[in-house]
Order: sequence, then C-alpha cells, then structure tokens
Amino acid sequence: MSTYRPLDATALTAHLATLPALSARLGGSPESWTAREVSDGNLNTVFIVSGPAGSLCCKQSLPYVRVDPGWAMPLERTLFEARWMQTLGAAVGHQIPALLHLDEGLFLIVMEDLSTHKVLRTALIEGDAPAGFSARIGEFVGHAGFATSWRARPFEDLFALREVFARNLSLTRITVDLVMTDPYRQGCARNRWLSPALDSDVAEIQSDSVLHAGVTRLQERFLGTTQALLHGDLHTGSVMVHNEDVRVIDGEFAIFGPLGFDLGMFIANLVMNGYALPDRESWMQDEISLLWSGFCNAYRQSWDGNTGCGDVGSLATPEETTHDQDRFFREVMRDCAGFAGLELIRRTMGFAQAADFAAAPDTAWEAEARRRALHTGRRLIVKSALIEDIEALLDAL
Amino acid sequence: MSTYRPLDATALTAHLATLPALSARLGGSPESWTAREVSDGNLNTVFIVSGPAGSLCCKQSLPYVRVDPGWAMPLERTLFEARWMQTLGAAVGHQIPALLHLDEGLFLIVMEDLSTHKVLRTALIEGDAPAGFSARIGEFVGHAGFATSWRARPFEDLFALREVFARNLSLTRITVDLVMTDPYRQGCARNRWLSPALDSDVAEIQSDSVLHAGVTRLQERFLGTTQALLHGDLHTGSVMVHNEDVRVIDGEFAIFGPLGFDLGMFIANLVMNGYALPDRESWMQDEISLLWSGFCNAYRQSWDGNTGCGDVGSLATPEETTHDQDRFFREVMRDCAGFAGLELIRRTMGFAQAADFAAAPDTAWEAEARRRALHTGRRLIVKSALIEDIEALLDAL
Ligand SMILES: Nc1ncnc2c1ncn2[C@@H]1O[C@H](COP(=O)(O)OP(=O)(O)O)[C@@H](O)[C@H]1O
Ligand SMILES: Nc1ncnc2c1ncn2[C@@H]1O[C@H](COP(=O)(O)OP(=O)(O)O)[C@@H](O)[C@H]1O
Repeated sequence: MSTYRPLDATALTAHLATLPALSARLGGSPESWTAREVSDGNLNTVFIVSGPAGSLCCKQSLPYVRVDPGWAMPLERTLFEARWMQTLGAAVGHQIPALLHLDEGLFLIVMEDLSTHKVLRTALIEGDAPAGFSARIGEFVGHAGFATSWRARPFEDLFALREVFARNLSLTRITVDLVMTDPYRQGCARNRWLSPALDSDVAEIQSDSVLHAGVTRLQERFLGTTQALLHGDLHTGSVMVHNEDVRVIDGEFAIFGPLGFDLGMFIANLVMNGYALPDRESWMQDEISLLWSGFCNAYRQSWDGNTGCGDVGSLATPEETTHDQDRFFREVMRDCAGFAGLELIRRTMGFAQAADFAAAPDTAWEAEARRRALHTGRRLIVKSALIEDIEALLDAL
Repeated sequence: MSTYRPLDATALTAHLATLPALSARLGGSPESWTAREVSDGNLNTVFIVSGPAGSLCCKQSLPYVRVDPGWAMPLERTLFEARWMQTLGAAVGHQIPALLHLDEGLFLIVMEDLSTHKVLRTALIEGDAPAGFSARIGEFVGHAGFATSWRARPFEDLFALREVFARNLSLTRITVDLVMTDPYRQGCARNRWLSPALDSDVAEIQSDSVLHAGVTRLQERFLGTTQALLHGDLHTGSVMVHNEDVRVIDGEFAIFGPLGFDLGMFIANLVMNGYALPDRESWMQDEISLLWSGFCNAYRQSWDGNTGCGDVGSLATPEETTHDQDRFFREVMRDCAGFAGLELIRRTMGFAQAADFAAAPDTAWEAEARRRALHTGRRLIVKSALIEDIEALLDAL
C-alpha cells in the first residue's frame, strides 16, 4: 500500500514498473510504455497505459470532483468500485472489466483495458451502437441482483456486505441530493435548464405537490429497501460496447437498494436518447423491451436454479414460486417506472445532464426533447404504482 | 472493562462494591446488600441487588441459552440491549429502564430496578394487569419508530446505526429461524404442540403452500426493509407494568426492520391471552385498538413536529404529508397483520410458546384457544394485503 499522491502519466508509469505482474502484462521495458489520459467522467482520473504485450486501464480518485475542483470529495470511492467488482465478479463474469490490482493507499484501481470498446452514450449519439445491447445489461442486472439477494445467501453474509457498501456515504449523498431532491427545489443553485423555453415546465415540476409526494415515496424506497447490490449509476455512460461485447464499468456508487433503481436509470437514458435524436424512438423502445426481458429471464433462471441457502424463500414450493416471481417482477417494474422518472427529470434540469440532448438536430427539437423528458418523468413518478408490466411502461413513455 | 466470568450473587455484589457510583445508589456497606436472582427469560441471568438506599437490576449474558445450556450463544447480546437503550433513551424517556452501567467485558448491564413492576404477561395471566397499558406501548413504538426513521435523521446517521445493529446476528438468526421458518417445516425438532388434539391443524399449517408463500413475503419484508429500529421481541413478557407506569425491557433483539413487526408481535400476544382466558377477548380487542391509536398518534405527532433534517420527506408539503401519513399507516397495518400471524403460529407450536395457554380453565379450552391461534395466524398471514386499518384487523381475529 502506497501513500496517496495524484499520479500523472509519468508517475503512473513509474509506479506500474514497480509491480511485476502488471509490468509483465505490458511487456518490454517501462521506457516503451505510453500513458494516455481518457478521463471523461465527472469524478476521477483514468489513464490507459500500453506496452508491447498489452495494455491496462488505471483509475484513480482525486480528493475533489474532477470537473469541479472546488467540490471536495473523499478518496475512498475507488475502493467501493473495487469492492463492487470483487463482489459481483463470480456472478456476472465478463460483463464487467477484470480487476487486476487495487492499491488502497493510492486509491488506484488497475483493470482490464477496454479501449477497443466505446462508451455506449457516445456510440448512441454518434449512431454506431450495435442494436440489442440492452439485453446484456438486463442480464447483468438480473445476475448481479439475484446473487446479492436474500434468496441467494444467508442474511449473515448479506448484512456484512450491506455494511461494506453502507459506508459509501459521499456518493450516496450525491444520489440522494442530485437525483431525488435538488431538481424539485426552487432556487437550488445546482439546477439549470434551457431558458426561457423550459421555464414554465420547470416551475411546474418545482411546485407540483402530487409529484413531490411521488418523489418522497421513491426517496423512502431507495433508502429503506435492501433488495440487492445496485450499480447505483447505471446510465449509458457507464457501459462500454464493442460489437456483441457489452461491459458495465464505474461501480463506485454501489449500494444496496431496490433493483428498479438500476433498471429505471438505464431506461431513462434510453428514453432521452430516443427523444433527442430523430428516428430513434422505436429502436429505443425495442431496447427497453430487451432490457426488461433480459433482466427477467436472467433473474428467473437464477431463482429457478437456486440451491436454496438464502433465508427468504426457504419454504416455497415450485408452484408458489411462480406466483412469487410474478409478484416480484411487478414490484420491480413499479420501482423501475418511478426511478426512470427521477432520472429523466434530473438529467434534464439537474446538475449532471444527458449529453444526448445537445446532439438534437436543432434547438427547437432539443427543447421539445427536454420538455418531453420532464413530462414523461413526471408521469412515470406519479403513475408508477399502476405500471406493473413492460407494456404499461412503454405506453407511458 | 473486566474479563468475562459469569457472576453469581456473591461475585456480583463484590463487583458492584468496586464501582463507586453504583455503590452510592445502593448505600450502606456491601455486607448490607442482598442479591436475588429473578431470571425468568430464556436467555440471560438477572439479579436484583438491594441496599439501604436503593436497588439495581443487573443482567448478564451467559455463553449459552439459559434455559438450554447445550445451545451455545455469543455473549454480545447484552451489548445490543445496551445500544438499544442508548439509541432510544432520548426519544422514549421513561418508557424504558434507565441504563446505569455497561461493562463490555463482563457483558453486564446495570439498569434501573423495576421490582415494583410486574411482567405484563404474568399480570395478564394472574388477572391484575391495569387496563389501557397498550396505549403506552403504542406510544413507545411510535416515538422509537419515528426517531429512527429516514424522516427524522440524515441517512448517514441511520446507515451508521443500522450497521451497529446489523451485527446482532445470533439473535436475528433466532428470529429468522424460530419465528419465520421452523414452524412451517415438517419434522423440525424444535416444534411441539398439543397432540393429538392439534395434529391435523399442524399438518395443515405445514403443507399449505399459499400460507408458505405469505410467510415468504414476510421473511423478505423483515430482512429487506429498514424502516426503523425495532425492539425485535416485543411480546407481553418484554413489558413491565405498575399502575400507569409501563416499561419496555429486554431490547437485545434490536434490529432495523418494518415497524409492523413490533406491533404485530405485541398484538398476537394480546390475542393469545384473549383466547386462553375466559371473558377476556373484548378487553384484549380494546387493548389492540389502544395500541394502534397510541402508535398512530405518537408517530403522527412526531412527524408533524419534525424539524426536517431527514432525507425522506424533505420536499413534502403539509397537504401531501397527510396523504403520505395515511398511506404509511395502511402499510404498517398490512405488515402488522402478517407479523401478528407469524407470532400466533410460532407461539402455539414453535420452540418458545406463550405461557398464557397453560392458564386456560381446562384442556379442552386450551386446545380450542391454541387451534384458534393457529387459524387466526394463518388468516392474518394470507389476508394481510387486505388488512389496512384497525377495523379490518379486529374483524380478522
Ligand atoms: N476499463 C476501461 N477501459 C478503457 N477505458 C475505460 C475503462 N474504464 C473507464 N474508461 C474510460 O474512462 C472514462 C471515465 O471512466 P468512469 O469509470 O466513467 O469514470 P468516472 O468515475 O469519473 O465517471 C470512461 O468514460 C471511459 O472512456
Ligand atoms: N429492570 C428490571 N427490573 C426488575 N426486574 C427486571 C428488570 N429487567 C428484567 N427483570 C426481570 O428479569 C426477567 C428476565 O429479564 P429479560 O430481560 O426478559 O431476560 P431475557 O433476556 O433472559 O429474556 C424479567 O422477566 C423480569 O422479571
């Protein structure tokens, strides 16, 4: 374990040279290695280091938010990302990058390089995303979700795991504030929107007490439900694709919560892409269907094949399990609808917005796309209790 | 902190003599003190030590279950009881005994002596319980429940508190096994029942897949919901009464979970008393109503007076808060009904049974009381989704 210092390209290469296993993966001598910064997320520094034999992706926390150095942020976030990879590795296999090294002193993760891949949001904006990626994301959520559920493991294991991620306070604080509070607060300085086009829509969102009651229910659901280990930030910028290969990255927001949070967030990002780009909506609807069926199939398969060491469901007979599964999927869908609504609103008028909107063909289109996102978001939150299957969800978009 | 050894009356008195604050409360010299064992619970040793100036109640863990020395059990349970008292003291005031001393090495709690009080279950069986005690228990659950809810405190505080009690593994294991699993398992050696009178009722309970699906939902609700800090074992043996003064003791099962668990467990114990003793049912129904209104009033009052530092509800307007409260109480009642059902069944045919049954006037009455407890238990579990207010609950008893 080393003492923390932010590593630039030179310092990072020198550090890797001290680690035999990683040096061997790069091959050749350190002088032949190149380090290229690829950070495009909000929070951390990411370098790709390449050598004659291979390459590595190195991610390090900074003591502040990368895009806003005035916003101090504890370094520990990469540790939670590493714990997330370690916890899910066996259940999700190659759907996340392999973790090759963790330095808890430097708050440095070294992982499999996915430079052949492209960030999904970029691919969607540039128009070269391979159709069908969402099925893989659905499977990922299904496998990760079941493996960390009360049905799969004794509660003692899960309490211990929940404890680990319950220390992920600063990023959970971001979720609670940015996703489920700030956008609804008049005068909150972190909000911004296309003005004056959306002024009246935003004013409605901020004064609608029925909507606020729906948001309150989702706040409670997010904090008060420990259904599974969530990714916690599963938008299209947390996925990298290369043909059929779909990987989920950036699990630093991992926390136990309701599965509909991950699914709903991903769906909202597909919806925004569908609104922002011409002739895109029906494809995105197909992706949403694939996400949901991929999730249901994977989760149901794990459930059916469960060897039964969990405490929940130990009494269930096969016939009742089928009912129980149907009830479970209806519940996840209700959550999913509500959390999708939160994500639509916060990515349209909150602190961290979806880049997809800026790719609209013109400002009028962009304004309309954003307006639709706000209204669909509201509808999903207010009506979530009635949205219990994929047809009802698609109807509400 | 001292090294652990089980203290008998002599060793306990000698130990107290080394502690000036406690010695002062007892007054006089140690030779004038008397120690009287009053253990009547299942798990721990309890002594009342009296001196010329006052008395103390001393509770110590044993490395096994007191009533079953072959059943090893970690000592730490008194630590959780102490944490529970420390956590709730400010919110519930005199409704729990004052914690005077904790020795984490001896696993010894010294608390306010309630020898003027009587254990509620005993008072109910002996017929000298003061009517109306349940209102106080309802208030206790309401105050404790709100003070440890997402509405009352920032999630960072509650995650930390939840972590503390999530280590309460051995007692939570008892709850999961004895309350929500074993009774439904054919051939489980911990079950016993009035045989042959109840053989066919028990066989039904153990082969009813609709019931087992209901139990499964409650397992999930108990483990997957962190609504508030529960007492975790709130039966009539965990309450001591003296006229108007009603105290809740024995919080060693404390864990975060759904509030309906505490309320439902208490209700079930009132129901069993009502079934077991002649001319008792309508009084017990009144107590159940008082419990519920006491709970609702206390919880609503705390909610209305909330200064708003919690993360849930930060956006709510007063008009929506009223709706939100109604929804909340309906949800708690559904849980309450289901958990009351679990408690009725496990106290009638599981490991730890309600002593009230043995106080029935004759065996035929006892058998009928037990049969009713099993059938009401089943009905409450299977129908809990439809039981949303106190009238519906009373109708189902
Ligand atoms: N394993 C990887 N291989 C290649 N590039 C990666 C890898 N992980 C992240 N990246 C690149 O780094 C960027 C930022 O990574 P991300 O984990 O999203 O950081 P942040 O935590 O700052 O959001 C990604 O958008 C992607 O371009
Ligand atoms: N503070 C107290 N004052 C007087 N008697 C008490 C007090 N606490 C417990 N007791 C007596 O000790 C008995 C056992 O205590 P309890 O906390 O229920 O133990 P256990 O954890 O073994 O169930 C109670 O039933 C009651 O008679």
